[in-house]
Amino acid sequence: MSEIPTDSVGLVSPRTVHFDTPLALACGKTLPAYDLVYETYGTLNAERSNAVLICHALSGHHHAAGYHSHDDRKPGWWEAHIGPGKSIDTNRFFVVSLNNLGGCHGSTGPTSHNPATGRQWGPEFPMVTVSDWVHSQARLADRLGIERFAAVIGGSLGGMQALQWSLTYPERVANVVVIAATPKLSAQNIAFNEVAREAIRSDTDFHDGWYAEHNTVPRRGLKLARMVGHITYLSEDAMGSKFGRDLRSDDLNFGDDVEFQVESYLRYQGDSFSTAFDANTYLLMTKALDYFDPAAAHGGALAPALAPSKCPFLVVSFTSDWRFPPSRSRELADALVRAGKPVSYINIESPHGHDAFLLPEPRYQAVFSAFMSRAAEELGLEERT
Amino acid sequence: MSEIPTDSVGLVSPRTVHFDTPLALACGKTLPAYDLVYETYGTLNAERSNAVLICHALSGHHHAAGYHSHDDRKPGWWEAHIGPGKSIDTNRFFVVSLNNLGGCHGSTGPTSHNPATGRQWGPEFPMVTVSDWVHSQARLADRLGIERFAAVIGGSLGGMQALQWSLTYPERVANVVVIAATPKLSAQNIAFNEVAREAIRSDTDFHDGWYAEHNTVPRRGLKLARMVGHITYLSEDAMGSKFGRDLRSDDLNFGDDVEFQVESYLRYQGDSFSTAFDANTYLLMTKALDYFDPAAAHGGALAPALAPSKCPFLVVSFTSDWRFPPSRSRELADALVRAGKPVSYINIESPHGHDAFLLPEPRYQAVFSAFMSRAAEELGLEERT
Repeated sequence: MSEIPTDSVGLVSPRTVHFDTPLALACGKTLPAYDLVYETYGTLNAERSNAVLICHALSGHHHAAGYHSHDDRKPGWWEAHIGPGKSIDTNRFFVVSLNNLGGCHGSTGPTSHNPATGRQWGPEFPMVTVSDWVHSQARLADRLGIERFAAVIGGSLGGMQALQWSLTYPERVANVVVIAATPKLSAQNIAFNEVAREAIRSDTDFHDGWYAEHNTVPRRGLKLARMVGHITYLSEDAMGSKFGRDLRSDDLNFGDDVEFQVESYLRYQGDSFSTAFDANTYLLMTKALDYFDPAAAHGGALAPALAPSKCPFLVVSFTSDWRFPPSRSRELADALVRAGKPVSYINIESPHGHDAFLLPEPRYQAVFSAFMSRAAEELGLEERT
Repeated sequence: MSEIPTDSVGLVSPRTVHFDTPLALACGKTLPAYDLVYETYGTLNAERSNAVLICHALSGHHHAAGYHSHDDRKPGWWEAHIGPGKSIDTNRFFVVSLNNLGGCHGSTGPTSHNPATGRQWGPEFPMVTVSDWVHSQARLADRLGIERFAAVIGGSLGGMQALQWSLTYPERVANVVVIAATPKLSAQNIAFNEVAREAIRSDTDFHDGWYAEHNTVPRRGLKLARMVGHITYLSEDAMGSKFGRDLRSDDLNFGDDVEFQVESYLRYQGDSFSTAFDANTYLLMTKALDYFDPAAAHGGALAPALAPSKCPFLVVSFTSDWRFPPSRSRELADALVRAGKPVSYINIESPHGHDAFLLPEPRYQAVFSAFMSRAAEELGLEERT
């Protein structure tokens, strides 16, 4: 694109920061040193009080808004909500967005060099959990001189990180926004993740995770994993109205070929993803989803688990989301109420399923903006122009 | 088992019947000759008026009730509903259950010998549709001397065949029972089928369907296909109450191993299936599901498509079925009403998802039995003891 929209943060560049203080992980292992890649949008104020942390979902990364060049076809993944005048208003807030540890977009992960062995980490990269991410994000905040975030915000797996922030670092977060998430995965959620993992593991090109050393990637497995995932991101209605039973060509072919548009769409989505994402990272991210369960340490009781939290919450769900349906957000909101925490919960009417959290929708934008404006006012943040 | 329950049809044996009249298929090809394997339960009356046809679902077969030997661990797949005193009462009805064309349990299908080439049919077995099955079933009825079925009954893909019977052979069926089915697949249904097919096709052991000639089977693909299928057969609640987030061992292992019980269950289900079912048959059966759409020839309008039907219908759905949810059965029931056809529709409260159609549930059994009793009375069938 040659003309960057005026409501975009514009051209942005990622930066990388290196940490050489070892990070102890929930799995019992320690990461001796690591890099985190991140982007920022807007300006950190003199009081360093206007920083907002964006946490990404399963296949997300640090590039949440703006464009990397004038030739970029697409902006960052949350362009709909980050920018001047948008829900997360970069005229007010300084936005920090990183690629999580274990990722495959620049932060240390399975595709990185393991100094201890001299080869890629590959499948030996330690399991990282939502808590581990929150610790690593806090270190990034330290490095940026941010003592306390005005808000920590995320959708889906990102929402779990936002929630965990309020529990691990209650003094370091003034507001939390949890969108299209759940306080823990259901058996069905885990089952879908397991199908995706089994697809990757059973690809003969996976080589127990050492595919890079075999100069290959488990494309077939990643493609299948993405196809399964994609079905769960879209609502049945969205798929129906997008594709219905439309045929790819005029007549039925009664063969092995693609017959319906929806098949063609899924294959395309799967193919694109299979060359762009690392398989070991996919396994790790889905496991992190499975493991998240702050209530587990409290015998499954969520309200007591939320006791450490000290900040107001905005919890958002979408009517047609069946991956993490409204009932799961309500579960969180109810537990926050029982724990005596301030929470606003809204269930947004949307036909777009789980993916709705990425899209602009007037009511969603209005509620999100209002919450962020109130946060800005309470923190005494001024608008820059 | 040594003691066969008294409400079972007892020991049964399959029979095979050969047809050498070519069968023209919807795809344009012709099957020159074929075998069908079937079982019968109960006794055909002198008037040949008490026959009931059972149509099987995706992975079903002819063995719907009874035991093949005293050593059989399990009875037929619909033992809950076929037998003396059961919904399909073998004291009244003569039950015919076959393996469909294209199957892998004895009827001619991809694993059969293709006389034209001297090798297995494999991927060259022609695509068969629900209509083709109905034609082949009518020929089986001819061979058994059954001019008209007292009822044609099926669940899921079997329900589609029962519905098609009333359209293709309205004079040859006195009653139709359509359980947990749909008049056509949704885009999401097709998407799930496509993931299963892609899993099979992309298995390096698939060899474009010629795996038998390579002395292998695409086990990994079939396993994945079954795992995906299984998630859609169970309700989210059923999975939740069966497994919840129960761990396989006492502690989290933070590794590649199975962590949650639901993962272990799915892997086991997938493994068992992958050695017991033919991959080409799986592709064919899922395609037959995708293609079924009697309304297509009427511009998508279902009621006009149902005009040929002449018999009373029982349509049954289950509250927690999300593969073919109650709304899809209601769509059929509503169209039957608009078409002026007699229909009873009931939505049965059940936590068991799509699989509920296989299980005994008192209200389901009561409604099913009542419909069949009324059918028997109207046909003047007497009870044998």
